[in-house]
Amino acid sequence: MRFDSPRDVRHACRMGKWSSVTAGLCGDYAQANLAILPADWAFDFLRFCQANPKPCPVLEVTDVGNPFLRLVAPGADLRTDLPRYRVYRQGELVDEVLDIAELWQDDFVGFLIGCSFSFEAELLAANIPVRHIELGCNVPMYRTNIPCRPAGRFQGPMVVSMRPMLANQAIQAIEITSRLRAVHGAPIHLGDPSLIGISDLDKPDYGDPVPVRQGEIPVFWACGVTPQAAALASKPPIMITHAPGHMLVTDLSNVELLKDW
Amino acid sequence: MRFDSPRDVRHACRMGKWSSVTAGLCGDYAQANLAILPADWAFDFLRFCQANPKPCPVLEVTDVGNPFLRLVAPGADLRTDLPRYRVYRQGELVDEVLDIAELWQDDFVGFLIGCSFSFEAELLAANIPVRHIELGCNVPMYRTNIPCRPAGRFQGPMVVSMRPMLANQAIQAIEITSRLRAVHGAPIHLGDPSLIGISDLDKPDYGDPVPVRQGEIPVFWACGVTPQAAALASKPPIMITHAPGHMLVTDLSNVELLKDW
Repeated sequence: MRFDSPRDVRHACRMGKWSSVTAGLCGDYAQANLAILPADWAFDFLRFCQANPKPCPVLEVTDVGNPFLRLVAPGADLRTDLPRYRVYRQGELVDEVLDIAELWQDDFVGFLIGCSFSFEAELLAANIPVRHIELGCNVPMYRTNIPCRPAGRFQGPMVVSMRPMLANQAIQAIEITSRLRAVHGAPIHLGDPSLIGISDLDKPDYGDPVPVRQGEIPVFWACGVTPQAAALASKPPIMITHAPGHMLVTDLSNVELLKDW
Repeated sequence: MRFDSPRDVRHACRMGKWSSVTAGLCGDYAQANLAILPADWAFDFLRFCQANPKPCPVLEVTDVGNPFLRLVAPGADLRTDLPRYRVYRQGELVDEVLDIAELWQDDFVGFLIGCSFSFEAELLAANIPVRHIELGCNVPMYRTNIPCRPAGRFQGPMVVSMRPMLANQAIQAIEITSRLRAVHGAPIHLGDPSLIGISDLDKPDYGDPVPVRQGEIPVFWACGVTPQAAALASKPPIMITHAPGHMLVTDLSNVELLKDW
């Protein structure tokens, strides 16, 4: 299926015509992670994100009980406009569904969080290869020994994604991503993985392993899995997220992320 | 009085030995605006700040009821460690006091917000003159016709500060401040003030007027008065702030603000 605009993607999701991953759809536009929590948990979660802006770059927070977005995709409906959702109760995955209209609560608050798809598009545009895209697999992700700053009921280790590259490419990637703070910003580490508590690059905690070739160094970015993992660890009564890879396609171009989103 | 460290300044405030403005004290260290609100108002306020990062760059949010800071000045006590406070009830200024130990409530949440003192230090270090510092007066500030993004009970126009400079200095100032997002980041306008609803530069809404000389253009930065003004307009039952110019002196060096604070 071919989509002319982010709005078309969201409409297809709403109509039940698209329920697959969104990678590569409308590639010039930013995609976003979703987390929905009851209002009682929302302030602590936003504090956690504020205190940890690299793993948790918040793009928009919805009004309590209002499923419609105003900023990143005006008019989009959080209940229907993503292709697939996961439902967690007490920190346990209990369901995966195509919409959450039946589950919506008057006290729900939605959080849209930046996604590394945006900076990968910028890296590719600068002719910096992205290994997992070349290989057609998922990016490797690892739990580190770097603690996030705790906030209220939320705490946990930072999760990172890894992309291998040559030193000169790593330098340019740092220059590029340092300007893209809405999508994790500059890396948090490069080189020796053991220094951040990663014992084996071939065994990622999430995603797929990729080879680090001769002369390349692994470069580690804070990852959008971090806030969800921290939130789930605190076992809220209910939390709804997008299903992995099934993101909200926003109306923000990747270039617009250079502004203060 | 001469202080060796931010800790010494805070200790002098706590002991009642310093109750004056903090401009110029420990100039290598960031100073911060303070806003304290009851927990019931805190989520909306943090959402407002998140949605308006240029005027409202949040450095730290405290735990509910806990007056001690953890990040920007570990161990600092919000009740005593600023030189002077203002107390507002229902949006009206009702008192100015030297400490708030008697007023502290179990549901209070403190917000520390970045201050332009930090980027002015960086401008001066780059030999970009800062007119109001040269003249020994307060920076001129103006209400604009640029609406902030509303969030919950909070809304209002953006307030800006203005510094006149030559075009090449303005360009360099944009380069410098764009990296300092924790203290308002890049300007939001330059040139014709009427385009953002300012009718007369000689009549600032806050602070003092400064001359714009031949060949200079006015450059406008989002101002830390914005979040307080928006919060006060929504008339919370109680809100406590620092008294203007009587800031928290933090342990963060201005250079550390380049990280993700």
